Amino acid sequence: MSPTDVVNHMLKTDAFSNWLGIELIEIKEGYSKIQMLVRAEMLNGLGIVHGGIAFSFADSAFAFACNNRNNLSVALDTSINFVKAVHIGDTLIAEAIEMHNGKSTGIYHITITNQNQQTVALFKGTCFRTGKLVMNEGI
Amino acid sequence: MSPTDVVNHMLKTDAFSNWLGIELIEIKEGYSKIQMLVRAEMLNGLGIVHGGIAFSFADSAFAFACNNRNNLSVALDTSINFVKAVHIGDTLIAEAIEMHNGKSTGIYHITITNQNQQTVALFKGTCFRTGKLVMNEGI
Amino acid sequence: MSPTDVVNHMLKTDAFSNWLGIELIEIKEGYSKIQMLVRAEMLNGLGIVHGGIAFSFADSAFAFACNNRNNLSVALDTSINFVKAVHIGDTLIAEAIEMHNGKSTGIYHITITNQNQQTVALFKGTCFRTGKLVMNEGI
Amino acid sequence: MSPTDVVNHMLKTDAFSNWLGIELIEIKEGYSKIQMLVRAEMLNGLGIVHGGIAFSFADSAFAFACNNRNNLSVALDTSINFVKAVHIGDTLIAEAIEMHNGKSTGIYHITITNQNQQTVALFKGTCFRTGKLVMNEGI
Repeated sequence: MSPTDVVNHMLKTDAFSNWLGIELIEIKEGYSKIQMLVRAEMLNGLGIVHGGIAFSFADSAFAFACNNRNNLSVALDTSINFVKAVHIGDTLIAEAIEMHNGKSTGIYHITITNQNQQTVALFKGTCFRTGKLVMNEGI
Repeated sequence: MSPTDVVNHMLKTDAFSNWLGIELIEIKEGYSKIQMLVRAEMLNGLGIVHGGIAFSFADSAFAFACNNRNNLSVALDTSINFVKAVHIGDTLIAEAIEMHNGKSTGIYHITITNQNQQTVALFKGTCFRTGKLVMNEGI
Repeated sequence: MSPTDVVNHMLKTDAFSNWLGIELIEIKEGYSKIQMLVRAEMLNGLGIVHGGIAFSFADSAFAFACNNRNNLSVALDTSINFVKAVHIGDTLIAEAIEMHNGKSTGIYHITITNQNQQTVALFKGTCFRTGKLVMNEGI
Repeated sequence: MSPTDVVNHMLKTDAFSNWLGIELIEIKEGYSKIQMLVRAEMLNGLGIVHGGIAFSFADSAFAFACNNRNNLSVALDTSINFVKAVHIGDTLIAEAIEMHNGKSTGIYHITITNQNQQTVALFKGTCFRTGKLVMNEGI
């Protein structure tokens, strides 16, 4: 079962990532690169995109990277820095890079950029590896 | 202009918080308490609620607390610890408490609990105070 | 073996906490309160106390709280917000409160205050519980 | 005044960085690379190096990177993940990379490695730029 198989399985049933409109660009072991388009319903009350949208997008990239060896991993602690405001119509790209792949835990850096290659947010995630499978071999 | 006036103004135009179904419970200077109901479209691919939902909910509580003196404040750095899985049908409550109210920055702790008074996530947010108004006096 | 026994055992061999001059005020299950006096060798190049001193002090409070059930726990992810500058001669107090006591992980908030009851830093720590003993029963 | 001038000025009066034994390897605008040797007085009560030592070392690298344009910058929010235990006799290297250089704030990633090129800790720092000088032009 390849990392791409695992992520395709995850994304298929991931209702919120589908609401966000997330599309896969590249999946490798411990790595993911995804994109999405920002829509009007993602705005906050200050006229810019809600911080939760950028976080959610990065968190999906994190999940797709840290689970794709088919070792079910859950987020323990995550943080995000907001560098630049995001606007309606922006196309965002998130790239998740594995900084540490431990037996019980893993650490990932996710960078979100916009269509002008500007960094809009920096995310760091620590996950706990449960040892369970994300998807069964036979499926 | 009261803290409640400012937050009502923010929430009215906050499309994503409205999508989340956020309702105000209590607003005071530097404080907010809000609630929401978890729906099926908020699930991730592991069968539990997407981490971005809890983050977004806490981030709204953060925004409602740190902006309600009508000093426009933007999130700089935020982090969240996921303590307990969230399920469809859960009613979540987020309470934002001001830990520091500085001239240029502020720090807030947000605790999310479920309908059984169990803590599901702990959020910390640092904001930057721009000195601009959230809403004009005359409006 | 009481929480105080475990912490006394830890502190006795904790060379760096001893260099910091840390003294115990109160130890309870999942809780610690400690103090230290700030000295000239703790300054940084900007004329205020080095951020690493406040972090180290909070990190010791964290260790004393999260290990004192004699379940050896190691720090995974920690963060600290610096709220107010610390000066030579200040007496600092750190109080560690357990926010979550899970089977594999724990979360603690540590607040550092000075002799004027002003908050100088806010620390959050996530630990991983190894299941090993901090000290053997017979000692 | 070069970035190296500013950092040399900072390090000269940085009592705690001197206690740590920090030496400069390379300083560039918004960048620093430093090293130190781990000594016995840096141990904690669990027989490994105190987390505050790795934090302090990274925090110095952060300060040397974010202040070296001679724009006095103070740490707002920092976090560190501990990946691998550090032992007496280890030589640590910290490299600080600027992820964002904003007008009021900056974000830096600092990676600490040991003499075997193994990552031991990952640090992220957000600073606030005060607009004051670190050192006067005439000095």
